[in-house]
Amino acid sequence: MRTACIRTALLGTILQAGLLAGCGGGEPSGSTAQPGTARPVRTSTDGAAGLPVDARKVMQERNLSPDDVTAALRTYMPSGRHDDFLMFASSGHAGQVIVIGLPSMRILRTIAVYTPESWQGWGFGAGNDVIAAGAVDGKVMTWGDTHHPGLSRTKGEYDGQWLFIADKAHARMAVIDLRDFETKQIVKNPIAISDHGGAFATPDTDYIIQGGQYGHPLAWEYADIEEYDTRYRGHATFWKFDRQRGRIDVENSFALELPPYWQDLFQVGWGPSDGWSFGNSINTERYTGGIEKGRPPFESGVSQSDTDYLHIINWRAAEKAFRDGKFTRVNGFPVLTLDTLKKENILYFAPEPKSPHGVDVAPGGDFMVVSGKLDPHVTVYSFAKIQQAIAAKNWSLDPYGIPVLDFDAVVEARVELGLGPLHTQFDQQGYAYTSLFLDSAVARWTLGGPYEKLNPDRPWSLIGKTPVHYNIGHLAVPHGDTPKPEGRYLVALNKWSIDRFAPVGPLLPQNLQLLDIANTGANMKLLYDMPMGIGEPHYAQIIRADLLKPWNAYPEIGWDPHTQAVSPHAPKQGDEKIVRRDERTVEVFMTAIRSHFKPEHVEVLEGDRVIWHVTSVERALDAVHGFMLPGFNIMLSIEPGEYQRFEFTADKAGVYPFYCTEFCSALHLEMMGYFFVRPRS
Amino acid sequence: MRTACIRTALLGTILQAGLLAGCGGGEPSGSTAQPGTARPVRTSTDGAAGLPVDARKVMQERNLSPDDVTAALRTYMPSGRHDDFLMFASSGHAGQVIVIGLPSMRILRTIAVYTPESWQGWGFGAGNDVIAAGAVDGKVMTWGDTHHPGLSRTKGEYDGQWLFIADKAHARMAVIDLRDFETKQIVKNPIAISDHGGAFATPDTDYIIQGGQYGHPLAWEYADIEEYDTRYRGHATFWKFDRQRGRIDVENSFALELPPYWQDLFQVGWGPSDGWSFGNSINTERYTGGIEKGRPPFESGVSQSDTDYLHIINWRAAEKAFRDGKFTRVNGFPVLTLDTLKKENILYFAPEPKSPHGVDVAPGGDFMVVSGKLDPHVTVYSFAKIQQAIAAKNWSLDPYGIPVLDFDAVVEARVELGLGPLHTQFDQQGYAYTSLFLDSAVARWTLGGPYEKLNPDRPWSLIGKTPVHYNIGHLAVPHGDTPKPEGRYLVALNKWSIDRFAPVGPLLPQNLQLLDIANTGANMKLLYDMPMGIGEPHYAQIIRADLLKPWNAYPEIGWDPHTQAVSPHAPKQGDEKIVRRDERTVEVFMTAIRSHFKPEHVEVLEGDRVIWHVTSVERALDAVHGFMLPGFNIMLSIEPGEYQRFEFTADKAGVYPFYCTEFCSALHLEMMGYFFVRPRS
Repeated sequence: MRTACIRTALLGTILQAGLLAGCGGGEPSGSTAQPGTARPVRTSTDGAAGLPVDARKVMQERNLSPDDVTAALRTYMPSGRHDDFLMFASSGHAGQVIVIGLPSMRILRTIAVYTPESWQGWGFGAGNDVIAAGAVDGKVMTWGDTHHPGLSRTKGEYDGQWLFIADKAHARMAVIDLRDFETKQIVKNPIAISDHGGAFATPDTDYIIQGGQYGHPLAWEYADIEEYDTRYRGHATFWKFDRQRGRIDVENSFALELPPYWQDLFQVGWGPSDGWSFGNSINTERYTGGIEKGRPPFESGVSQSDTDYLHIINWRAAEKAFRDGKFTRVNGFPVLTLDTLKKENILYFAPEPKSPHGVDVAPGGDFMVVSGKLDPHVTVYSFAKIQQAIAAKNWSLDPYGIPVLDFDAVVEARVELGLGPLHTQFDQQGYAYTSLFLDSAVARWTLGGPYEKLNPDRPWSLIGKTPVHYNIGHLAVPHGDTPKPEGRYLVALNKWSIDRFAPVGPLLPQNLQLLDIANTGANMKLLYDMPMGIGEPHYAQIIRADLLKPWNAYPEIGWDPHTQAVSPHAPKQGDEKIVRRDERTVEVFMTAIRSHFKPEHVEVLEGDRVIWHVTSVERALDAVHGFMLPGFNIMLSIEPGEYQRFEFTADKAGVYPFYCTEFCSALHLEMMGYFFVRPRS
Repeated sequence: MRTACIRTALLGTILQAGLLAGCGGGEPSGSTAQPGTARPVRTSTDGAAGLPVDARKVMQERNLSPDDVTAALRTYMPSGRHDDFLMFASSGHAGQVIVIGLPSMRILRTIAVYTPESWQGWGFGAGNDVIAAGAVDGKVMTWGDTHHPGLSRTKGEYDGQWLFIADKAHARMAVIDLRDFETKQIVKNPIAISDHGGAFATPDTDYIIQGGQYGHPLAWEYADIEEYDTRYRGHATFWKFDRQRGRIDVENSFALELPPYWQDLFQVGWGPSDGWSFGNSINTERYTGGIEKGRPPFESGVSQSDTDYLHIINWRAAEKAFRDGKFTRVNGFPVLTLDTLKKENILYFAPEPKSPHGVDVAPGGDFMVVSGKLDPHVTVYSFAKIQQAIAAKNWSLDPYGIPVLDFDAVVEARVELGLGPLHTQFDQQGYAYTSLFLDSAVARWTLGGPYEKLNPDRPWSLIGKTPVHYNIGHLAVPHGDTPKPEGRYLVALNKWSIDRFAPVGPLLPQNLQLLDIANTGANMKLLYDMPMGIGEPHYAQIIRADLLKPWNAYPEIGWDPHTQAVSPHAPKQGDEKIVRRDERTVEVFMTAIRSHFKPEHVEVLEGDRVIWHVTSVERALDAVHGFMLPGFNIMLSIEPGEYQRFEFTADKAGVYPFYCTEFCSALHLEMMGYFFVRPRS
């Protein structure tokens, strides 16, 4: 065959390129990509109008309204331009965290938490320990239901360092490190099997608060439902966070025993309300269901009363009581009993209408807004008035002897918004935004008192409603649950999409809609529909992207992402070897670099226990390798500098090709090796 | 407490709304949402210019170029407008399929395949059987590496009914039903542990072809690497598809034993080349690696030769040989040996430069384009010339005695494009598009011969290159690998994003870029950057959305998605009950409707085996419920009408609240019940 037309001379060049560079445009290690590179404005081809002829044609062709055009231009992100905000969304029963850029509304990545996820190499050799630490009754769970992410705070504001998120399905809490966007810890709550899946950080992240949901006996021990009032309980758990170690300090964590009122969302106060926490409840009726027995179903039984109880917790007093040893242990975990709560003045109630879903703290830490769900109002509580009522003992008692403050004494205002108010966020102009589930709208209304001067609208009033599509649950404003909201955008986390998107079968995506809320008055504009078909976000927190300082690569070669330090066990280049430790144990030390693993041949005997170490010795941004082994459920994602270690038993003889799963270079397909399991003779 | 301000009268209204409607805007069952509802064009506020003043301000404010504006307007989707195309993308080592709308480039949903996914309820009580059927050596794998989706075809064109996708990590094949976008079957290849993860449907979907990747002994039995040439093999497996049953018919499937040349991607011919299949190889050197022994690494050893072998398979002849019983069984599976391939004239080779990655068939089925990877050309083979060379026996023999056709006799043209050509797609204007990995660009070039008249450019020529960001792997044009491409758009599936997106840690997303290729000449425009941080798509197929006819709800109440028929076991309203079958077995029959489960109390004894049936008796579009049990790893997603059944052992006494995980109504939070496991006395 003629080879004249085959440029063999090119081989050296291409191979070289493949080995050394792999891909164009790498940043030096340690540098941070520069966001928002300004690009030169080109003179329009249509000087008078300011918009190009092409664009007008497209507008007509695609039948876009002027509002559509404005919305498109507000959200479009030219190649290389970075989003201004990052939204950390829960993903519901997908069990993860979803990171979305605003205003483009593009999913930048997910963070695997409770559910193994193989693209990130979570739970397939790496992260297994973390997942296993969250076992329920000794059984490893491989999914979770995430609802409320909680970013770590300093002086009440997001500091961009840690993210906490709970699992509603099993009452667990997770810690995510925002240096590498990976989950570092999962803890199982020893006294509860139900919570709302919320994580609320105190203003300096001393504690992460996890509130209960469905009443059950503490430690979910068996007790007949007939004993509901006496044996079933709720809880609020205070997880101590050790910022140095980046871990929940279980030893210094504790819980409050609460009546079985089905607590819902909690929120933490700051400023004047620093040291206090507020939570809803939805079943003070203490209804126990049983539709199959001819009784009303839960949905109506728990909705009979006009009010439930806002829980008002003095968590500093709780902390003190805990430190003074005033607790009992349940399943080994410190619990402050109802009696202690009463004695130490830790817990108060106030009536709240009516099976409400959310309680949200206004930016000044002065008002607590309860969204009525089955009541069309938001009810605004004044912290100052709460303190006065407590001081004046202006209360009655609930069946457990807990003080119930007088409603009129503690309520500042009530604003009627519409059907199905669920959650509230705030901006810096004195506006509040509440989701109306049944009206399928976002209501903008005004706070009063010190907020009145921030906007031209009358206080404590509904200003306008914008329809959303459809049936909104939560909503999120950048920094909207902190002392300093940045109310430029609002994301409506709608539950039903119905007809919004091309059909994809009977399981539809949700619809997250971006709104422009920068103006005053009723002027809120719908900007963008974002289908959400990889999970069901409930709440999300939105943070300015420049507050995050994630790594581009691990700081040094051999970095263990679990200890966040170099590991003494990590093989570096030159350390590659295969060592037989004993008759039944082999230890492998491997490195990965574009485009080969070393060693390429790994042989063990059938039945060997194999301990396998692998380090990526890359330094460049985006130079990620994957490593897998077929038949042993191993899949690692190895970022630049990262070290991983996994173990398994080579229980079946055979020849198993391993390869790099993450496309890394021109010769990525050739980045492979063989794992031989020889039969024992 | 005063209740004057609490509108109790509203209770009835809201509760009613919550119970009966749940949410606004439901479509009647069975109807299909109407796509692309036209919206009235509003007169611009700036008549002469045609674009609103607001928009011009935004353009300046955000420093958008005219091209940016055009791109934004081409891709923006107003609320309720449906995408024109659906892209079914692989997700790499996430193990799933990702469904993306074009031109908006929004993820509509994922389809869980090889990796359990709890939002869709896949692998947590439902789908476990399907996943288990793909076990490797009796061990259930919970991840996969998906590379090449294959839509089912009729006369070579996408018919929108089925989607096939293979698992590169373990050599498996999956079948997805596009009526409900769910995985119905996973089969494990009995003779191979390595494949490329590709699924290629023959023109009428008689077979799905799965080609091998890394050479290993058949059935991955142990053999020393020294025996590579004699004991290690490749394969091409032909899975028979039974369209009636919607399943791979394993009994009528077979494989070809191939030399251990590391086959890569296969493609199937149509029209003149109907009955033939074409596949690459990358290691005809039969290099076996061993960098740790001082030998060159695989990446260079397998790249030494100027050419590898294009595999040319007469699959109709292979089918005939199989049906005539001319096979041997390996691990129980029918294999046509190398000898048979030779005797029955099934397999031919042609030299192809140089470790190529893709072979793509032109729309007329007349040319096969090989992208050179380490050679800067695409090499175009003529099927007519291949047939002539075969007839004339114009060949030499490879080491296994397989005919290697003369290169010059079968090549129609070679076009030099640039560095790192990987894959090619086509449009209806006679253009071809090839990804250039190292150049980080898409090359547009022209086919010749019968295609010459379709565009004004000269044939067999490079016309232009558009940079992409960065390092493109595959590319996809709507219907671009069929007889009738619709070349309006092209998606570049780029591997590295580097600086394109806000930093999210050391594991970056990929970047899928949408290009406008509707014009002629060199005019291709970059439209949209889509971050991809939930998996790593390799190839994708793009189909017109109107060709898909997914269900909005299951056709009847009690529908079993696995049999795609009503199940006799499915409880309907009135059938709810709990039945003790024996001392150790309890069977539960439950229904779900907004907003309650029935029964709400389920009690068993510790140690009971529990069989649980649940039917959603909903009919409305988007009325989905979730069902979970804590502590038993159960999470189901139950679409309207769907019936599911799961089993587990209630191995620990306690009280376990269950609840609906998918937000379904105003009283969603109240849609719960209790699972009691009473200690056995």
